[in-house]
Amino acid sequence: MKPLRVGLLGLGTVGRGTVDVLRRNQEEIRRRAGRGIEIVAAAVRDVGRARAWVGDAIPVTDRPQDLVRAPDVDIVVELIGGCEPARELVLDAIAHDKHVVTANKALLAHHGNEIFAAAQKMGVMVAFEAAVAGGIPIIKALREGLTGNRIEWLAGIINGTSNFILSRMRDTGASFDDALREAQQLGYAEADPSFDIHGTDAAHKLSILSAIAFGVPIRFDAAHVEGIADLAAADIRYAEQLGYRVKLLGITRRTPAGIELRVHPTLVPAKRLVANVEGAMNAVVVKGDAVGATLYYGAGAGAEPTASAVVADLVDVTRLHTADPEDRVPHLAFQPDALVPQPWLSIEDTVTSYYFRILVSDRPGVLADIARILADFRISIDAMFQREPAEGENRTEIIMLTHEARERDVNEALRRIEALDTVLAPVIRIRQESLS
Amino acid sequence: MKPLRVGLLGLGTVGRGTVDVLRRNQEEIRRRAGRGIEIVAAAVRDVGRARAWVGDAIPVTDRPQDLVRAPDVDIVVELIGGCEPARELVLDAIAHDKHVVTANKALLAHHGNEIFAAAQKMGVMVAFEAAVAGGIPIIKALREGLTGNRIEWLAGIINGTSNFILSRMRDTGASFDDALREAQQLGYAEADPSFDIHGTDAAHKLSILSAIAFGVPIRFDAAHVEGIADLAAADIRYAEQLGYRVKLLGITRRTPAGIELRVHPTLVPAKRLVANVEGAMNAVVVKGDAVGATLYYGAGAGAEPTASAVVADLVDVTRLHTADPEDRVPHLAFQPDALVPQPWLSIEDTVTSYYFRILVSDRPGVLADIARILADFRISIDAMFQREPAEGENRTEIIMLTHEARERDVNEALRRIEALDTVLAPVIRIRQESLS
Repeated sequence: MKPLRVGLLGLGTVGRGTVDVLRRNQEEIRRRAGRGIEIVAAAVRDVGRARAWVGDAIPVTDRPQDLVRAPDVDIVVELIGGCEPARELVLDAIAHDKHVVTANKALLAHHGNEIFAAAQKMGVMVAFEAAVAGGIPIIKALREGLTGNRIEWLAGIINGTSNFILSRMRDTGASFDDALREAQQLGYAEADPSFDIHGTDAAHKLSILSAIAFGVPIRFDAAHVEGIADLAAADIRYAEQLGYRVKLLGITRRTPAGIELRVHPTLVPAKRLVANVEGAMNAVVVKGDAVGATLYYGAGAGAEPTASAVVADLVDVTRLHTADPEDRVPHLAFQPDALVPQPWLSIEDTVTSYYFRILVSDRPGVLADIARILADFRISIDAMFQREPAEGENRTEIIMLTHEARERDVNEALRRIEALDTVLAPVIRIRQESLS
Repeated sequence: MKPLRVGLLGLGTVGRGTVDVLRRNQEEIRRRAGRGIEIVAAAVRDVGRARAWVGDAIPVTDRPQDLVRAPDVDIVVELIGGCEPARELVLDAIAHDKHVVTANKALLAHHGNEIFAAAQKMGVMVAFEAAVAGGIPIIKALREGLTGNRIEWLAGIINGTSNFILSRMRDTGASFDDALREAQQLGYAEADPSFDIHGTDAAHKLSILSAIAFGVPIRFDAAHVEGIADLAAADIRYAEQLGYRVKLLGITRRTPAGIELRVHPTLVPAKRLVANVEGAMNAVVVKGDAVGATLYYGAGAGAEPTASAVVADLVDVTRLHTADPEDRVPHLAFQPDALVPQPWLSIEDTVTSYYFRILVSDRPGVLADIARILADFRISIDAMFQREPAEGENRTEIIMLTHEARERDVNEALRRIEALDTVLAPVIRIRQESLS
């Protein structure tokens, strides 16, 4: 059979990884796919630099707008990143009857619905395994491996930079700033780390996973997003003492009142497998009603792990490009006419357990006042300890785990607690999930 | 679209789970698959008992030989287990142009090559996600999710009964016999647990995974199989002290000299995620050259977890049953004409690290004698400690971890060590894998 012909948009880290993996494993891939996969063109910004790397093996152009229309290209692989010009190029590729493989989570989070609708209309595929959790085949697991299930929730460590920083803070007691600096030195964080540490990147990925899990359109704007930049080493240590690890989780869950979609630092019981995912690795836990909890773990970024997902998508497209479009796996796991918009739960209506750290005057009655306010809002305490004040210190900290409570009630209770004379600073709070 | 019509062979635990899941989630499954999946017949041994459970909803027969030929059946789901009559029925279903979904690992381990060849000839699919690791979509991950990779090795906890017993032995210090009894009381082990505790069940699954990982025919007979029945609580405790957990692993690996295929108790560093898989859960680690190590975790048995995999296969078959057979995912991941038989490495040529426990007289010079013999065979010691002899006791135990050594050399070295006057019992040895 004739090889499938690929046009590559972008020859950065992942682009080069893809070229390397396709070259090195071409024989293995042909044994699997039954035909070859050949890169026939690459579009880049700096042609000279690209030629210096790739040589004459692949024709290089600086006109991506030509590549996405080239008659000898069957599949366009978009590895530019960002929303524009990626969106325009992908839509143009689709309009010219090309299948698309993309690693671009920002693009799909913001414009996925538009792109999938266009692909649907043209009868082409847009594959995006590489957009979420790098080399872990989580999109495939959700869309195809768990089709028998009603998915109840999923929770994932889907930003390697944040997980690396949190792992270092725990291992070494480092502050957030020091751990971030180390991550930057080691190449786990970018010079401008905002997207990673403020949770945006995780929220992009989560909004894609949520749509696939529940059969709803992608709604990035519905996500509640908090990052890790405000976490103190002390809270990671106290959490540890209570038997928990702090992870930046993306969580999405069906509830009778709507779908939860939230990214924030989370206390997870240390005995859970996902709590033991260290360094820049990713993991996603999926809870299905039939299968129970399953977990998928691996490298969430990097040239070759991401290329692994890109190539898997290429093989899938290769297999299915002659299939009847209606027999293909739908882009968002559910048939387009079966995507049912659902209400999204606001963060204030979310019910979780909490970790609080409260800086107080070391005086009798302080705890009683706090406990009474919590009780007034039906927030019950699961565990509590008080830091021993240092010699001569007249302040101390109360560390507390609560049972489940509604966020709105917690907000109000904490407002009143913070108004007490004896409470000396805003209460630190971190949500907690049992993930069972 | 018309629903796909399924004939069910067997209405035991998994059969009933499949009926339950298909019923409960029919709307969700239709939203995904674009059409319904309907059970139109079930064949069982005891029709009365089956009718009492299923009522009139599904016609029940005791003539499976009719069901596999019934013109109104599109897909036969084989949930009988064991080799005969399952083999005959599956082959007959294939001969009558039915697709087959099976959870039967023994059948595939022994007769998979024959069955897949027959299916290939008829252009039908035989799907078997449920045969390995229950609800974990590991077959899909290997066959489709990691197609860009050259798989280097995989290692799995793929027998829940054994893992439950090992977890209990570690948690409570129980003996093997006591932990087995507890597993039987809780329903995690059968009245006759031989297949589970002697490693046969894990070897069935491993031989399937190995074929899919490397593109070789299934060769169950090439597997080296050891179970957990001889493990002592002491070794689990000593392993723990050294920073390891003991797991029954199925391991398959490419080496220049041939493919390893082995099931045996294994020391795994406690910090590895897979070492923290507890109870009856399963997990498989797959190392690909591009993606690195990935891990897949979930329930490896049980009615609904296994049904989850059966239904996922039904949806896959539903999607692909009109596709050109050559565009479907090949049964063993690689195109049938690209399956290349490879030499299988004998266990004696395997290179691993080891844990030894040696019962010795508490006399000077004992360790020197042992160390010299090991050195003669180029087996070097990585870590060692000696149990403190009790008051008045004139014997003690040496516990030792080695660096990598060839099994043949280890066998010969231990033969000589056991011949020493000062060595009082056969040496306990457990292989060790770093899984990095």
